[in-house]
Amino acid sequence: MREVLAQAAFQLFLERGFEQTTVDDIVARAGVGRRSFFRYFPSKEDAVFPDHERCLAEVTAFLAAVDDSDPVAAVCDAARIVLRMYSANPQFSVQRYRLTREVPGLRTYELSVVRRYEQALAGHLRGRFGEAGDEALRAEVIAASVVAAHNNGLRLWLRSGGAGDPEVAVDHALSLVRDVWGSGVERPAPVPVVASGGNEVIVMVAPKGTPMWRVVQQIESVVGQGSAEK
Amino acid sequence: MREVLAQAAFQLFLERGFEQTTVDDIVARAGVGRRSFFRYFPSKEDAVFPDHERCLAEVTAFLAAVDDSDPVAAVCDAARIVLRMYSANPQFSVQRYRLTREVPGLRTYELSVVRRYEQALAGHLRGRFGEAGDEALRAEVIAASVVAAHNNGLRLWLRSGGAGDPEVAVDHALSLVRDVWGSGVERPAPVPVVASGGNEVIVMVAPKGTPMWRVVQQIESVVGQGSAEK
Repeated sequence: MREVLAQAAFQLFLERGFEQTTVDDIVARAGVGRRSFFRYFPSKEDAVFPDHERCLAEVTAFLAAVDDSDPVAAVCDAARIVLRMYSANPQFSVQRYRLTREVPGLRTYELSVVRRYEQALAGHLRGRFGEAGDEALRAEVIAASVVAAHNNGLRLWLRSGGAGDPEVAVDHALSLVRDVWGSGVERPAPVPVVASGGNEVIVMVAPKGTPMWRVVQQIESVVGQGSAEK
Repeated sequence: MREVLAQAAFQLFLERGFEQTTVDDIVARAGVGRRSFFRYFPSKEDAVFPDHERCLAEVTAFLAAVDDSDPVAAVCDAARIVLRMYSANPQFSVQRYRLTREVPGLRTYELSVVRRYEQALAGHLRGRFGEAGDEALRAEVIAASVVAAHNNGLRLWLRSGGAGDPEVAVDHALSLVRDVWGSGVERPAPVPVVASGGNEVIVMVAPKGTPMWRVVQQIESVVGQGSAEK
């Protein structure tokens, strides 16, 4: 019933436009009563994104059960669950993407959903890093980076009309985030960085297992802010 | 007139609640006609955030004129323009923050505004890095990181009731992003990383001026993904 309603709604949105379609139109097309619609969907917008609640629940369950040795990898894997929801149905995903571009209310709805995924990822990272200060900050920045990277790869695929496998682009995008943030787990600090006397090179020595962000912090504490350039 | 309307609206939202206040209530309190309201604000939500349009214009103008030698620093400075809009009026900002927590429609409105700032920052970075492939990806991830860091610092200040100077927390948060992403400008690649034969240390040699993300990329290409740990 839920699926029948979602399909009827989506067909009508494509035929007549989102704003021009009423809930009465949808239930007439689906051959059910008006109250049935609201039993399954709080609003017309929800019928456009029928799988996000289930997917959010899946992401949450995954993160609750995941091996916690590498929290950044775990939230990247969680993002891939969202991707698979889109890639499981390329035609629907692409049509919905185009519809969403045209209807401001759907754009806003989508932003709210994306924010909920981001909060789920940040919550997981805070659980691993800690709730306070720089740990909470790092959790939020990494979660935002993962979401931005995922959306970049997803959008490429949607704009291409859903051709090929979006996992390739998304994996690549997520690897950029992992390269920068590493495992995100605290480990002993690297030994202090030594900058050479000359102008040509810097030399950095650190214990293996040092997370990348700590390496970066240490290099910069010696050679200056923002880049390895003095 | 615009300010009088915004003040009347906000007082009523605090007194009666956002949903319970009508546009008629607002114009009665302000002592003007109903059409005046809509001349200044497309909706009730817009009256809660009367300064974002001006601030978005200011951010855009700043980025159009900024010295482009360090694009990551430039988008961090652009984020500080938004912060100053909040910190210029602590009491209003804190009251609005509390109101926004309680009204889903205002939360959604705020997400749309935040997204527009993020797009302005990403657009600037794309203009500096390039529009395609990894450059566009990097632009989007950095913009999302800057926004997340800014919002983390801003939220700390709002939750504290607007005490003290929010610039301290936001500067600190933005420095985390700059530490990781550096200037973001392409420079020659570092010379290949050499991992020592032993298990204790890695040694990295790179030309000065190498951006931090490239250093990270190079270290990881030798010692493995996600951290400096094999």
